[in-house]
Amino acid sequence: MENGTAAEKWRFRGNEVLNTASAITIRGVLNEVMDNIEESGPRPIIPLGHGDPSAFPCFRTAQIAEEAIVDAVRSAQFNGYASTVGIPPARSAIADYLSKDLPYKLSPDDIYLTIGCTQAIEAILTVLARPNANILLPRPGFPFYEARAAYSHLKVRHFDLLPEKGWEVDLDAVEALADENTVAMAIINPGNPCGNVFKYQHLKKVAATARKLGILVIADEVYDHLTFGSSPFVPMGVFGNIVPVITVGSISKRWIVPGWRLGWLATNDQNGILQKYGIVDCIKGFLNITSDPATFIQGALPQILGKTGDDFFSKIVNILREVADICYDRIEEIPCITCPSKPEGSLFVMVKLNLALLENIKDDIDFCVKLAKEESVVILPGVAVGLKNWLRITFAIEPSSLEEGLGRIKAFSLRHAKKQ
Amino acid sequence: MENGTAAEKWRFRGNEVLNTASAITIRGVLNEVMDNIEESGPRPIIPLGHGDPSAFPCFRTAQIAEEAIVDAVRSAQFNGYASTVGIPPARSAIADYLSKDLPYKLSPDDIYLTIGCTQAIEAILTVLARPNANILLPRPGFPFYEARAAYSHLKVRHFDLLPEKGWEVDLDAVEALADENTVAMAIINPGNPCGNVFKYQHLKKVAATARKLGILVIADEVYDHLTFGSSPFVPMGVFGNIVPVITVGSISKRWIVPGWRLGWLATNDQNGILQKYGIVDCIKGFLNITSDPATFIQGALPQILGKTGDDFFSKIVNILREVADICYDRIEEIPCITCPSKPEGSLFVMVKLNLALLENIKDDIDFCVKLAKEESVVILPGVAVGLKNWLRITFAIEPSSLEEGLGRIKAFSLRHAKKQ
Repeated sequence: MENGTAAEKWRFRGNEVLNTASAITIRGVLNEVMDNIEESGPRPIIPLGHGDPSAFPCFRTAQIAEEAIVDAVRSAQFNGYASTVGIPPARSAIADYLSKDLPYKLSPDDIYLTIGCTQAIEAILTVLARPNANILLPRPGFPFYEARAAYSHLKVRHFDLLPEKGWEVDLDAVEALADENTVAMAIINPGNPCGNVFKYQHLKKVAATARKLGILVIADEVYDHLTFGSSPFVPMGVFGNIVPVITVGSISKRWIVPGWRLGWLATNDQNGILQKYGIVDCIKGFLNITSDPATFIQGALPQILGKTGDDFFSKIVNILREVADICYDRIEEIPCITCPSKPEGSLFVMVKLNLALLENIKDDIDFCVKLAKEESVVILPGVAVGLKNWLRITFAIEPSSLEEGLGRIKAFSLRHAKKQ
Repeated sequence: MENGTAAEKWRFRGNEVLNTASAITIRGVLNEVMDNIEESGPRPIIPLGHGDPSAFPCFRTAQIAEEAIVDAVRSAQFNGYASTVGIPPARSAIADYLSKDLPYKLSPDDIYLTIGCTQAIEAILTVLARPNANILLPRPGFPFYEARAAYSHLKVRHFDLLPEKGWEVDLDAVEALADENTVAMAIINPGNPCGNVFKYQHLKKVAATARKLGILVIADEVYDHLTFGSSPFVPMGVFGNIVPVITVGSISKRWIVPGWRLGWLATNDQNGILQKYGIVDCIKGFLNITSDPATFIQGALPQILGKTGDDFFSKIVNILREVADICYDRIEEIPCITCPSKPEGSLFVMVKLNLALLENIKDDIDFCVKLAKEESVVILPGVAVGLKNWLRITFAIEPSSLEEGLGRIKAFSLRHAKKQ
């Protein structure tokens, strides 16, 4: 201990686990790509990289949702702290909303309000973290899972989604990967980054596999109901009698308000297993020592969930169908990228890059960096979601901008095509 | 691995660290006390336990703040994801707001938006957690610090606040407690739970002590400007040239909107030490893998911070002065509790329980439980904030309710007084 004089050295340092855990994020990779865009370029930037269409007028949220917020703020009834699990009317509204698609009824006590789906993922991964525990995550996937697992010292094992089978889960791989320390598997449905929608029978097999392994299923349904192909959305909670299911979701995507940070975690567990094994108490413990979603947004939730008209939902799904079609058709015209299956849900599609057809393009990052530089188009290198030399393209933007963006990708690809 | 049949055992368990970390929270202790109230009792419950006056009409937030939210929502400009550090106009507005009380100007880059002050505390304690590191926390204090430190495996050592010196920090104790693994000390000013306000000279000594020890100062200023005695509020950041200061704050208390969940973390560090020692990068890393405050509330911030009139602030401070006076005067009339110094800030006062004057009251919890049962008055046992056989009383409620509540405490105390 120094005496009297100013310290030469300071004793604090940053927590290295945070640097490791936050090393690969979608935002981080996109920022890297975007750093290559010339701001003063003659053409507007076309953002096909991230899943937030809220800035486009055609994707503006429902007026009733905006008014619900206005009413809640003006009432001055929701300025105070909420209960850590969420205010009762919001829990009830979510239970009713989710129960519509289930063969049984969720109780408000099954619902926990979270700060977007993000905090719901953070909650369940923190709750499951124990010495030596591991979790099975999809590849490709959503890297926030890997980041939170790394931060909580929860080990990760990856199973593949199979492009040749419409991105179904490789269930044989799941069985082969699991051991006595495996605690859970996660699925994202509708799929990010693949744009696939799991069918009822496949989800039932997922449930049976998880039950056989004695693990719970985390069902990330943040894109619930954003489906526009032949497969309807089936919530994993339908199989809550086979296996305990933790559903995470939010209003971010269906209402196109990701900035409102209102999500939930729901326990679908008709046999009370999560309670018995201490998971429910730990979820409450987690929520006791973290922050909450804004109370007045919780207060607006009954009106948002209960009163948004089908016309709004149809309009959004129709636009998504249109842009998904545009995306699929235009990609077919580009020789160096191929799309294994037409997107049926969410806001994204995964396409494979054929580097053999390109000159001087090293890998997916190089493709995206040069595309940004030359064409002011932003797409996400597949490596950010676990698949090197693939690309994730967001089609959820104004149709005319999408056409323009895909046209530029085509021009870029032709310009860089290997000479025959 | 079982084959074919349903698992007899499930492999997941709850994370015990969460149960330990969340074992003592103010909300938890208050719920325990409130469980003793007869709901159907003839008299209204008087809540002197928690620091959230937002439900009382006289403490309603400024109309301009409500309208700022309405404008931000209706603009549809803030429905999307924010940058993880916060949107630039909000960072600028907070930098300007805090700089008004500093001898230098903060840059927007010094400001990080957080989900209430809660997440700012979570952020800095997570950032500082490293193997063997310890932090110095005040006693009495705010148990959320202990909870987050326990969760992050950051060891805690307590220094006393000295009631006989107006709850000043025992700086000799700080020096005696620190060792080569000490990374920081925290102060809360204006004080929760003591209602004290640190003077300029004392804060300067805190800075000098921290510098000597080579540790940073976390200055919890969530009650900034809620002062109504002889000591004005002085931000710790004034001494940012002596020692690196991390200031945490929010609009929750001054605007009486704790449910809006809008806070900040500010680096006051004119010598760039936090950058050099990796703290700044780690704060960004933390924010990269957690959720954010709602974007439209961030969007409303320039108007809230810039346009709220002095009339609103004066009104609130005047009410607090009035209720603090009522509280101090009424407590003087109650023999079994004594108040070491008149509150000058925040929403609370700490009073000492003299059990020798009471019959059949075992300790502070017993006092609060029986008071709740017999008088429907809720106050917080001191043990929840680290001081056994003290009580924390919130005076921030309607004056007439406060009079009523303190009258009931007096009646209770007289009824339980030891017979001479």
